[in-house]
Amino acid sequence: MSERTMRITEARVTPILLSDPPLLNLQGVHQPYATRSVVEVVTEDGTVGVGETYGDRGCLTALRSFAEHLPGHGLTEVNRLWDVAAEVLRPDTVDAGLLAERPDKGMFGRQNLSKLHAIVVSAFEVALLDALGRTAGLPVHALLGGKVRDRVDYAAYLFYRWDQHPVAHTPSDDWEAALDPEGVVRQAERMVREYGFRSLKLKGGVFPPEEEIAAVEALHQAFPELPVRLDPNGAWSVDTGTGVAERLRDVVEYLEDPCTGAEGMAEVHRRTDVTLATNMCVTTPEEIPGAFATEAVQVVLCDHHFWGGLRATQQLAATCRTHGVGLSMHSNTHLGISLAAMTHAAACVRGNLHACDTHRPWQTEDVITRPHRFDGGAITVPDAPGLGVELDREALARLHDRWVRSDVRARDDIAAMRASDPEWTMPPIPRW
Amino acid sequence: MSERTMRITEARVTPILLSDPPLLNLQGVHQPYATRSVVEVVTEDGTVGVGETYGDRGCLTALRSFAEHLPGHGLTEVNRLWDVAAEVLRPDTVDAGLLAERPDKGMFGRQNLSKLHAIVVSAFEVALLDALGRTAGLPVHALLGGKVRDRVDYAAYLFYRWDQHPVAHTPSDDWEAALDPEGVVRQAERMVREYGFRSLKLKGGVFPPEEEIAAVEALHQAFPELPVRLDPNGAWSVDTGTGVAERLRDVVEYLEDPCTGAEGMAEVHRRTDVTLATNMCVTTPEEIPGAFATEAVQVVLCDHHFWGGLRATQQLAATCRTHGVGLSMHSNTHLGISLAAMTHAAACVRGNLHACDTHRPWQTEDVITRPHRFDGGAITVPDAPGLGVELDREALARLHDRWVRSDVRARDDIAAMRASDPEWTMPPIPRW
Repeated sequence: MSERTMRITEARVTPILLSDPPLLNLQGVHQPYATRSVVEVVTEDGTVGVGETYGDRGCLTALRSFAEHLPGHGLTEVNRLWDVAAEVLRPDTVDAGLLAERPDKGMFGRQNLSKLHAIVVSAFEVALLDALGRTAGLPVHALLGGKVRDRVDYAAYLFYRWDQHPVAHTPSDDWEAALDPEGVVRQAERMVREYGFRSLKLKGGVFPPEEEIAAVEALHQAFPELPVRLDPNGAWSVDTGTGVAERLRDVVEYLEDPCTGAEGMAEVHRRTDVTLATNMCVTTPEEIPGAFATEAVQVVLCDHHFWGGLRATQQLAATCRTHGVGLSMHSNTHLGISLAAMTHAAACVRGNLHACDTHRPWQTEDVITRPHRFDGGAITVPDAPGLGVELDREALARLHDRWVRSDVRARDDIAAMRASDPEWTMPPIPRW
Repeated sequence: MSERTMRITEARVTPILLSDPPLLNLQGVHQPYATRSVVEVVTEDGTVGVGETYGDRGCLTALRSFAEHLPGHGLTEVNRLWDVAAEVLRPDTVDAGLLAERPDKGMFGRQNLSKLHAIVVSAFEVALLDALGRTAGLPVHALLGGKVRDRVDYAAYLFYRWDQHPVAHTPSDDWEAALDPEGVVRQAERMVREYGFRSLKLKGGVFPPEEEIAAVEALHQAFPELPVRLDPNGAWSVDTGTGVAERLRDVVEYLEDPCTGAEGMAEVHRRTDVTLATNMCVTTPEEIPGAFATEAVQVVLCDHHFWGGLRATQQLAATCRTHGVGLSMHSNTHLGISLAAMTHAAACVRGNLHACDTHRPWQTEDVITRPHRFDGGAITVPDAPGLGVELDREALARLHDRWVRSDVRARDDIAAMRASDPEWTMPPIPRW
């Protein structure tokens, strides 16, 4: 293939809104619609590569600034995207206020420019790899050194939830409420029946620890052969986290972020020896040395969206392997482009990989023509060129049009909760 | 391209002997001929990819065993080579005696199977990437995420040496002896004049520290603008290393392995704050956590031949970046295939990279049709498909024929030294 056909002539960013169910967490509840961005790169010969990432205003602005500088670059210049990000997204070009609007800002620690670089690079890295794979006739996993597994296991991501949003004229689905152990077990039963998941994860931090312990114990009783995880998003104090860890030590595969900060995590682990996972206290390379040295975490939940992409995921996996730390994957609300990207990256991770988190079953919409099907809780790694997905332009246009007609521009679980509880504010951390 | 054309049908291993000059080091002197292996993979459509690695008997046996198992695998299965290595090279299939024959066995710590896996995977990873790049029309660097630099800087690798081997009928070159500061400076002058190097490295551990300090100071005086390194291969005690570090603190870019073991290195660094580099106490991922935690090393000298390949090099680079540790590249006697591989890998390392070591200028022979040319001490990163080199089959046959007709089967600098000094034995460590 010639250099010419691999030159990028256009980079597009399309903000969309997707229906999201009323999933509960520490901060509040998911809004009826979630923002998301679909990015595309187009080459001189018309090849298109796609990526998907956050859609809040700060990211969107950064993605658009970055996109303006991509034309002229080649599809193979993945590693150089970091230089482009550093050139384009500088303290004097990025609005500090927009930067602060990043999704889950309470969950990933202090925001900074290098985290924004990682997000923007990741979205376009996936798009470049998709286009490069299509041009070269190679699946994305082949551009990452090739899959070491043919299927990637995902976990059932269980949520406390309402049956519908507390606001009229908002999207609904056919899932029932789950607000106690019985509801959680029924949700798990349906997840396992319909998707075949072989790992269970409960998003906690919603109810007092005793109730969540009871839910995890009920899950373990109902599915004694399936590993179970509990993730309160740092809602507990070190003492509470220690108590929960001791209660669930024979039940959980691991506890995720029982409390915030590497110091507290290290203390819980020191006291209990229970395996702890995180997507909160290790979210950047800079946070690794301290957290690993103190044994604060035994499993890192990687998320290519904020770790800097699929190559960065492989490099994080290598660093974890070097330090004897396990790996799994974190997930936010996402669609099929990201599921494909996660699957390619996970397929290339050498060694043990815990079943990856995915919100995908909660989404009733998608922007790809043939949404993925879970089989035995797993996604088969695609061998078609690129990511192995095709953009559904009609769906993309519809979800973009929804974004244009709406004023939802960021995730705000706290505000969404106020529709049900006008007095709701972000709970103090630790909450319990 | 079809899956069919990417299937490997044949894997070849060709042992060769190449002329090597009488370069001195701690153990003794380079033999007149050095072993090396050229590996090739061939696909169904006749595409050939090449790699180059060690040629000692232990490696050669392992490479041949591994090669037997490659046909049927695809070119994209780079990450899976580790699984193949683990299957083929097991405690019950690898001769422990042969394993112990690895080159520089005194320099890389205790031998083990996983180090052998890394060597074998590396050689064939390079060959697979070369063939995949040729098939997909992509340079190897594009398969590694793309170059972030267009030129890779190398250092002048200065050696104490004799003008010729102490054995008749052995190869010679047109370099004069260098056995004192003046000789070393003259060697550096020629290296800089002919190759344009902008960094200097002296292999030490040959003469008492005072003499080597004088040589480094002479280099610094002759080339005040060029960074200088000194590498005694762990020849010194902690106290001696500390003394040399203090003497050269304002002269050296870094000291390489002043003493053996992470503990001693950490002590020298603690006492002097001089930057220390290693290719001896950090040679595997397992050795990283301890060495980094104690600040034993500030620069890792990666060598794709024993770190597991070009992807492993990138991953090591990421781990080093994560820990704020610098990176450069180590070199043994090698030819142009390896120089191409090193250049592609180095081109893809994000962030700072110290000028890489290379023995290449000391080799008067090569197995590629157009040996590389250093320009300003750098190699331009090739953008041609694959590694960007073509195997010179006539040269390969000639060097293989030399191997067939010789009984040199491993590197043995101690035995080579005995030709000059019959009483020579491996010096005690620390020597000074």
